[in-house]
Amino acid sequence: MVSVGIIGASGYAGGELVRILARHPQAQITYIVSESNAGHPLARAFPGLHGTPAGALVCQKFNVGAASKAADVLFMAGESGAAMKTAPELLQLGKRLVDLSADFRLRDVDTYETWYKIEHVASSLLQQTVYGLPELNHDFVMGAQLVANPGCYPTAAILALAPLLSSGLIDARGVIIDAKSGVSGAGRAKFGIDYHFAEVNESLKPYNLGVHRHVPEIEQELSAAATPAHVTVTFTPHLVPMTRGLLATCYARPVKTTTTEQVIDTLRSAYADAPFVCVRDSGDYPSTKDVNGSNFCHLSARVDTRTNQVVVVSAIDNLVKGAAGQAVQNMNLMLGLPETMGLEGPGLWP
Amino acid sequence: MVSVGIIGASGYAGGELVRILARHPQAQITYIVSESNAGHPLARAFPGLHGTPAGALVCQKFNVGAASKAADVLFMAGESGAAMKTAPELLQLGKRLVDLSADFRLRDVDTYETWYKIEHVASSLLQQTVYGLPELNHDFVMGAQLVANPGCYPTAAILALAPLLSSGLIDARGVIIDAKSGVSGAGRAKFGIDYHFAEVNESLKPYNLGVHRHVPEIEQELSAAATPAHVTVTFTPHLVPMTRGLLATCYARPVKTTTTEQVIDTLRSAYADAPFVCVRDSGDYPSTKDVNGSNFCHLSARVDTRTNQVVVVSAIDNLVKGAAGQAVQNMNLMLGLPETMGLEGPGLWP
Amino acid sequence: MVSVGIIGASGYAGGELVRILARHPQAQITYIVSESNAGHPLARAFPGLHGTPAGALVCQKFNVGAASKAADVLFMAGESGAAMKTAPELLQLGKRLVDLSADFRLRDVDTYETWYKIEHVASSLLQQTVYGLPELNHDFVMGAQLVANPGCYPTAAILALAPLLSSGLIDARGVIIDAKSGVSGAGRAKFGIDYHFAEVNESLKPYNLGVHRHVPEIEQELSAAATPAHVTVTFTPHLVPMTRGLLATCYARPVKTTTTEQVIDTLRSAYADAPFVCVRDSGDYPSTKDVNGSNFCHLSARVDTRTNQVVVVSAIDNLVKGAAGQAVQNMNLMLGLPETMGLEGPGLWP
Amino acid sequence: MVSVGIIGASGYAGGELVRILARHPQAQITYIVSESNAGHPLARAFPGLHGTPAGALVCQKFNVGAASKAADVLFMAGESGAAMKTAPELLQLGKRLVDLSADFRLRDVDTYETWYKIEHVASSLLQQTVYGLPELNHDFVMGAQLVANPGCYPTAAILALAPLLSSGLIDARGVIIDAKSGVSGAGRAKFGIDYHFAEVNESLKPYNLGVHRHVPEIEQELSAAATPAHVTVTFTPHLVPMTRGLLATCYARPVKTTTTEQVIDTLRSAYADAPFVCVRDSGDYPSTKDVNGSNFCHLSARVDTRTNQVVVVSAIDNLVKGAAGQAVQNMNLMLGLPETMGLEGPGLWP
Repeated sequence: MVSVGIIGASGYAGGELVRILARHPQAQITYIVSESNAGHPLARAFPGLHGTPAGALVCQKFNVGAASKAADVLFMAGESGAAMKTAPELLQLGKRLVDLSADFRLRDVDTYETWYKIEHVASSLLQQTVYGLPELNHDFVMGAQLVANPGCYPTAAILALAPLLSSGLIDARGVIIDAKSGVSGAGRAKFGIDYHFAEVNESLKPYNLGVHRHVPEIEQELSAAATPAHVTVTFTPHLVPMTRGLLATCYARPVKTTTTEQVIDTLRSAYADAPFVCVRDSGDYPSTKDVNGSNFCHLSARVDTRTNQVVVVSAIDNLVKGAAGQAVQNMNLMLGLPETMGLEGPGLWP
Repeated sequence: MVSVGIIGASGYAGGELVRILARHPQAQITYIVSESNAGHPLARAFPGLHGTPAGALVCQKFNVGAASKAADVLFMAGESGAAMKTAPELLQLGKRLVDLSADFRLRDVDTYETWYKIEHVASSLLQQTVYGLPELNHDFVMGAQLVANPGCYPTAAILALAPLLSSGLIDARGVIIDAKSGVSGAGRAKFGIDYHFAEVNESLKPYNLGVHRHVPEIEQELSAAATPAHVTVTFTPHLVPMTRGLLATCYARPVKTTTTEQVIDTLRSAYADAPFVCVRDSGDYPSTKDVNGSNFCHLSARVDTRTNQVVVVSAIDNLVKGAAGQAVQNMNLMLGLPETMGLEGPGLWP
Repeated sequence: MVSVGIIGASGYAGGELVRILARHPQAQITYIVSESNAGHPLARAFPGLHGTPAGALVCQKFNVGAASKAADVLFMAGESGAAMKTAPELLQLGKRLVDLSADFRLRDVDTYETWYKIEHVASSLLQQTVYGLPELNHDFVMGAQLVANPGCYPTAAILALAPLLSSGLIDARGVIIDAKSGVSGAGRAKFGIDYHFAEVNESLKPYNLGVHRHVPEIEQELSAAATPAHVTVTFTPHLVPMTRGLLATCYARPVKTTTTEQVIDTLRSAYADAPFVCVRDSGDYPSTKDVNGSNFCHLSARVDTRTNQVVVVSAIDNLVKGAAGQAVQNMNLMLGLPETMGLEGPGLWP
Repeated sequence: MVSVGIIGASGYAGGELVRILARHPQAQITYIVSESNAGHPLARAFPGLHGTPAGALVCQKFNVGAASKAADVLFMAGESGAAMKTAPELLQLGKRLVDLSADFRLRDVDTYETWYKIEHVASSLLQQTVYGLPELNHDFVMGAQLVANPGCYPTAAILALAPLLSSGLIDARGVIIDAKSGVSGAGRAKFGIDYHFAEVNESLKPYNLGVHRHVPEIEQELSAAATPAHVTVTFTPHLVPMTRGLLATCYARPVKTTTTEQVIDTLRSAYADAPFVCVRDSGDYPSTKDVNGSNFCHLSARVDTRTNQVVVVSAIDNLVKGAAGQAVQNMNLMLGLPETMGLEGPGLWP
C-alpha cells in the first residue's frame, strides 16, 4: 500500500485524482492540500464527496515536512510555476512526484520561459524528468522519480501522430492539429466571464490560435518521434459547450502514397501493448462520449485519396487520460504496479 | 464469485449495470441479452466499451435455458411487460431476479393493469416480491429471490418523504412532488422527436401531469410508511436539458409546528445505517451534480415557517440510485454480500 | 420617434433591450451607459453587434445631464440600489423611466429594506410608481411616468395565479411556486464559480429556498389580486442548465370543486385582451422553448381531481417577458403606442 | 407586397423562414405546405407560434395549382430530390423559386447524381439556376427566377476562402476545412438515436469524413473563384452539442509570404459592400454565439508565420445565413428589394 498526497486537490484534476485513487487497491490518500479549503473537509470543495471517506479528508496548507511525512508519492496539481518551487526538496527527501503542471514538460528551459513567462527555478531537474506519456515512454516511466504529466491537448495529438512520424509515413512539415475541448479544460479556478455558463453554452469558439502553450510541448514530442526531422504544428484549440471531452482532428501529408488501412495498421502496431489506446476500425470514428470518464484514447484514421491528406482523429477525456488518469497510470509504472491498476472499467454512457 | 446475466443490456440501465458490474469484485457478467445486437459484441451498442473485456461480450437473444445455464442472478432491464413473461420459469430454476421494469413493483394487480395498460401474466408472484428500496426494506431484500427495483422518481420521492410520514411529522394529505429528470430517464429506445437534441436542449418541459405511471408506486410505498393513513400525491415530472440526474422537490404540511432541524434530525435518524443516503446540513441544498455517477441520494430539508410548509429536496442519479446502482445494491443484499460492494467511490465532478 | 437611453446596457437585460429596440419602428437608441465599457462601442460588450448600427453606439458613464439631453425614455437596467439614486432628478426633468431593477417594485419601503438590505433613498416616489405588469395594470401603465418592471419569477407566477385568486377560484393559503430558471437569470456580472459552465452544466440545483427576494414581490401582487385575503407563497427557485427560459409550476387548492376546463376558461377570460398571454388547451403544456426569444407567456392548467390540487404551469423567456420585452411593452403603453410594437413576431425554434 | 409560399414549413429551415418572413415588411406568407401537418394550423408543428398570425396559418399538402394561385415566390425547404420534381412547372407558371435543397446547387448533373444517389429529373434547369451566395453572385441573383440556396457548410467555407483564392493569395491545393455544426443542421425529420439528446449531449463527434455531400458544392464554388485552378478540399464535419451555430476553421498555404493584416484586408475589400459579412480585427476570433439568430457571417484570419499556414475562421448561424436568412436575402435581391429587408437587427445574446 502506497501513501499518496494530492497538492491542489480542489481543482478539477485534483478532484479526479481523488475519484480514481479512492478506488485504487494499492494506494491510500493520506495528504490533501487545498489552500482555499485548508482546515475543512474535502467535501466542502466537492459536495459529491459528502458521505464518503475521501470527503472526510481534511485539507491542509502545503508544508514540505508534512507532505514528506504523510506520503510517498505526491501529485502536484497546482498552476504552472508552483511545482518547481517544491520539487527539489521533495525529491531529495526521496519522494516520487507526478507533476500535472507544465513545469517539467519542456526539456528546454528557454522555451518554457518564453511560452509560460515564468522564470524556471529548478531547471537542473529537467534532465532527470521523464515525460509521462506511457505509450511512448513506458520503460522510462518505470522507476522514475519525477514524471511530467503531459497536457491534455498534447496527449491527444501526440498519440495520434507520433507513430506515423516515427514510421516515416507522414511528412514532418505541414502538420495541422484542429482541437476541441470541453470547458473543464480551463480549470476550476478560472471563473471569469469567459466561462460563465450563459456565455459558453450554445457557443463554439476558437481561441489562442497558434499561441497556445501546448504548442512547444507537442512539437518537442513529435520532433522526438520524427528525429532527425523537426516538427512544427499549426494548432487551433476550440472551446466546446460541454464539460468534459477533447477531440483532436489532425491533418498531415503522406510521404508517399498510402491507404487508410496502412495508417490504421501502423497505429495498431504501435499501440499493440498499450492497454488504454483503442484504434477503431476504418470508417468508425470516435466521439468524446466514447471515452467519458475513462482513461482510454480512441483513435481513428482516414486517408483522403482525393486530396492526399492523412486525417487522424483522437478522443480522450481531458481530465482522465488528459490529466488525472494518466497521472495514476504513471504512478503505477513508477511503483512497478500493473499499469492499469485502479483505471480499469469503462466510462459512463450516456 | 457470482455469475450474472443482463437482459436488455443495450439500454441505458443495462449499460450502467455493465459499468458497475465490470468492477464488482464478486460478480462476473456471463450472459448478455440485446435483441437488436444479437451476435455482436456489446461494444457495438456502447462504443465506450471498445478495448474492455465487457465490450467483447457477445450479445444473445433471450433464451431461458441459456440464461439459466449461464447465470445465477439475472437483471431484467427490458420494457415493462417483458419480465413477467420469463420470471416464473427463471424463479423455478432457482435463479435470483432483480427486475428493473415495473412488472413487480405494484402489489395490486388491478392498479398495474390500469396504469400500465398491460395484462399481468404472473400476478401470483407479486406476493413474494420484495420492493427493492434497501433503505426501507433492507431485511426483506436480504435473501429475497425476486426483487422489484424501484423507479427513478419513486426512489427520490420515497426516500425524501417516507421517514417524515412514518414518524407522523407531516400530513398524509396534500403532498406535492415536483420532480425534474434528465433525458436519459426516457430510455434509449425512445428516440422520437420528443428526445431530438435540438428540441430538448435549451428547454424545460413538464409532462404527464398527474398521470405519470410512477404515481401509484409512490403512493403505495408512502402509504405503507404512513399506515394507517392513505397517501395520495400530486406529481409533476419535468424534462430537464441534461443527460443524467433527478431532483424531487417535495412539499408537505407539518402535522404540528416543527423546525428545519427537527426534519433534518428525523431524516438522519432514519438513514443512520443507510450507506448511500446523505442528509445535508440546514441551508445546504444538493444539486444533481453532487450525485452524478454515484449511488448516493442526497437529501436536504427546510421548514418554511412563514407558510407552514415542509420542503424536502432529494437528488439522485436516475441511472444509478434510480436504476442500475440500486439494482446492484439489491443484488448484494440478496446474496449476503456487503451492501456497498462495487458501489463505493464517488461520482464524477464536474 | 422617441429617443431612448439604456443604463446598464452591457448586462443581459440591457443587451436584450438593444436587440428589441433596434427593430422598434418608433424608438431610437440615443444614449447608452455601460460603466465598464465607457468610451468603447457597444460591440465590445456584445460581439454579435459588430457590423450593426447598435454595435457602433459608444458607451458612456452615467451623467444626468447627458442622459436628460439625449433621451426621453430611460431604461434603468442596473443592479438594485442604483435606479433610486437617479430617478428623482430624471423624473423632475420630465423623463419617463422604466426601472428593471427592484427599487420601485415594492410599495412598502420596509419590506424593500428588509429583503434587499439597502436603504431606500427615494421612497417618496413609491406611491406614484406603477407596477408594470401590463396584463394586470394596463390602464395604470398607460401614461405613467415611472414604471417598475417586474422580476422574472414574479412575472411568470403572477400571470399564472392572479386571475384564479381574483375570481375566488383558489385558496389564498397554501400556494406553492416551484420555479426553474435558465442561468442568464443570474445576470452577466455574477461570474463566480456558481456560474462556471463546468459547475452548472449537467446539474439542476435549488437555491434560496423561501428566502429569494422575489417572494415579497409575488406576495404583494397576488395579495392585491386576492383582496381582502393576504397571500403568502412557498417559493422554491431552481437553476437549470440552460441559458434562457423560466418555468413556474404553481400549486394551489381550489376553494370549491372545480375542473381543468373551468380553470382554463378563467385564465382565458382574464387574458382575452392580452396580446402576449397564450393559454394552452387542456393537456397541452408549454416548454420554455415555446417562448424562446419572444415576449409571450404560455399558461396551462390542470385540476388534479384525485388530490384536489390546481396546477398551473407558466413559461416565459426570462430576458424578454421577464425583463426587456416587458419593459418595451411598458414603454409602448406609457407613450400611447400600440402595446405590441417592436415585439411582434415569434421566437426562435429550435 | 409579395405573396410567398413555404414548402416544407415544419422543418427547421421552414420554421426559420416563417420567423423571418413574419416580420418582413414586404412579404406575406400565403401558402404553407407540411405534409405531416396538413389540415392543421402551423402552431401544431411549432408551439412557439401559438397566439401569432403565422401560427394560425393552415398547412396544406403540396399542389401545384394551389401553390401557383397563392404565392408569387416559393421557398422549397424539403429534402433533396423533391424540388426538382415541381420546379419546372412552377417556373413555367412564372413563379420565382428559392430552393433550399441541393437539387440545383451543382452545375454538373453527374456530380449531383454521384454524391446524392438521386436521378436528376430537371437537369435542363441547371444552366439558368443562380447559386445564391449573394456576397459572390449579387448581380446574378438580382432578377433571377430560380436560385439554389447554398448549404450551411458551403456558405461558411466559401465566404472564408473564395476571396483569398480569387486574389491568388492562397494555394488552390491543400485546402483543409475543419467544420463544426450544431445539431439542428441535421434537420428535424432525422430523429434516430444519433440525435437522441442523451447520445449527443456532452459529446463531440466527427462524421462523414471526406464523403459529406457538401464537398462537391464547396469545390465547385471555390474552383470558380480560383479559376483556372481546380480546388479540392479535405473536409471534416463535426457534430457539436449545441442547437444552432456553425464554425468552419479553414487552413490553406499562402502562395507567397503574407501577413495576417494582408489576409484581413483582402477579406475586407472583398466584402466591403456585403451587409452581412463582418471581418473581425486581428486577434479577435468569432464564436458561434456572435451570430446566433442573425444573418451575419463573422470572419477572422491569422497567418501562422512559424508554420506558413493561413487560418481563416468563419462563423454563421446554420439556420439563418446557412439556410433561411440567406434564402430571404436572395428573395430580396430577386425582387429588387433592399438586400437586408427583414433581416436587420442583431441576433440573441446570450
